Formats: sequence, structure tokens, C-alpha cells
Amino acid sequence: MALTPELTARLKRNPDGLVPAVVADATSGAVLMMAWMDDEALDRTLTTRKATYWSRSRNEYWVKGETSGHTQHVREVRLDCDGDTLLLKVDQTGGACHTGDATCFDADLLLGEEDA
Amino acid sequence: MALTPELTARLKRNPDGLVPAVVADATSGAVLMMAWMDDEALDRTLTTRKATYWSRSRNEYWVKGETSGHTQHVREVRLDCDGDTLLLKVDQTGGACHTGDATCFDADLLLGEEDA
Repeated sequence: MALTPELTARLKRNPDGLVPAVVADATSGAVLMMAWMDDEALDRTLTTRKATYWSRSRNEYWVKGETSGHTQHVREVRLDCDGDTLLLKVDQTGGACHTGDATCFDADLLLGEEDA
Repeated sequence: MALTPELTARLKRNPDGLVPAVVADATSGAVLMMAWMDDEALDRTLTTRKATYWSRSRNEYWVKGETSGHTQHVREVRLDCDGDTLLLKVDQTGGACHTGDATCFDADLLLGEEDA
């Protein structure tokens, strides 16, 4: 059990029992996506190093890439100063986004550089 | 008004009317912190380029660095493929974390590199 009682006590979950996980590429540093974990998803991620989330739309655990092949091998997991946000650094195979884009933030620029 | 009706319609908010904003350093790419925005905070951020969040603990708008001097000048704002997460790329002055750390994820490593 990677999720120790000590860690369990420190995690701050939302009313649905979930913690947001920011996922960044371990090599480039690019922010790839955000997803959600409950305690079990975090435990599976820490234990297997396969990024595992809770799908709020499908109400099930979701091993990233299990269907698409676009897996995430987890190099690091960090918890923030408030205990309410996780940061994963991963080796991403293929595009991280279900659209095929490299990241989930590629397509929709709301505000660009001032001199753009 | 930077927050157009078209954008307002695309944003997906949580039950409290908030959207998570992942904040990354525009130069290094490092993930600095996560915070929350309502429509007004996003509008102010887009308009002023000063990162402005909704403080869930203090129930008020919070211009990052207004007290600490550790400001965030916003270079880019992106919305993810689901319309429910924002990514800000900022020029960070001083440490992003209220603890003084460079990022809110510096202090608490849950899982490290395999060969560490």
C-alpha cells in the first residue's frame, strides 16, 4: 500500500472525494492535461507507475492509454503546499489529448503574447 | 470585456462556479501552482494581465502578489479540450508559493525517480 495513513490524512479532497492532478511531461516540462484522482487512483498510480485517474464522466478508474495506447509512465508525484493538488511528471507516449494533440491545451488560446 | 459571451458559453465550471487554473512559468515551463477562477477573475486576468484568482478560503478576489509582491504577469491563457481547465503562462516575480518556495510543489515528493 503506497498510500500510507499519514498521506491519507494529509490529502484534501473535494466534496466528491477527488483531488486534481496536473500532469506534466517529465522531459519537456509541458503541461499535458489535468485529471482527477481519488485515494484508490492515487494508490494505484504510486504502486504501478501507470497514471490512473477517476473518470468523472464514466464513473470508473481509467488507466491512461489503456485504450489509446497513449500511456503515461510516472516518474514523479508531488503534493502541493495545501495538500489539495497533485503534480505528476510522466513519460508520455503519443499525444496526451484524446483529440490527438500533444497536450489538452494546444487548441484553444484565449490570450496570447503581447507582441504577437 | 475580454470574457466574450462565446467564451462564457464554452467554460465548464464546478458547482461553485469555479474553473481550476494551472499556472506555469512562461520561461522555464515549471508548474508553479494551481488556483481557481470564476468568470470575473478570468475576465480581470484577461484584461489586466495580472493573474487574478478567487480565494476559496477568504471568499474574495486575489491579485497574486498584491500583498507579497510575488506578482504574475500573464503571457498566455489557454483553455483545455473539455473547457474545464485553464492554463496560464506567467512571468513570476519571486517565489510562487506562500511558503517562499519557487513552486507550490517543491516540498512534498510522494514518489521519486526509479533510480533515485
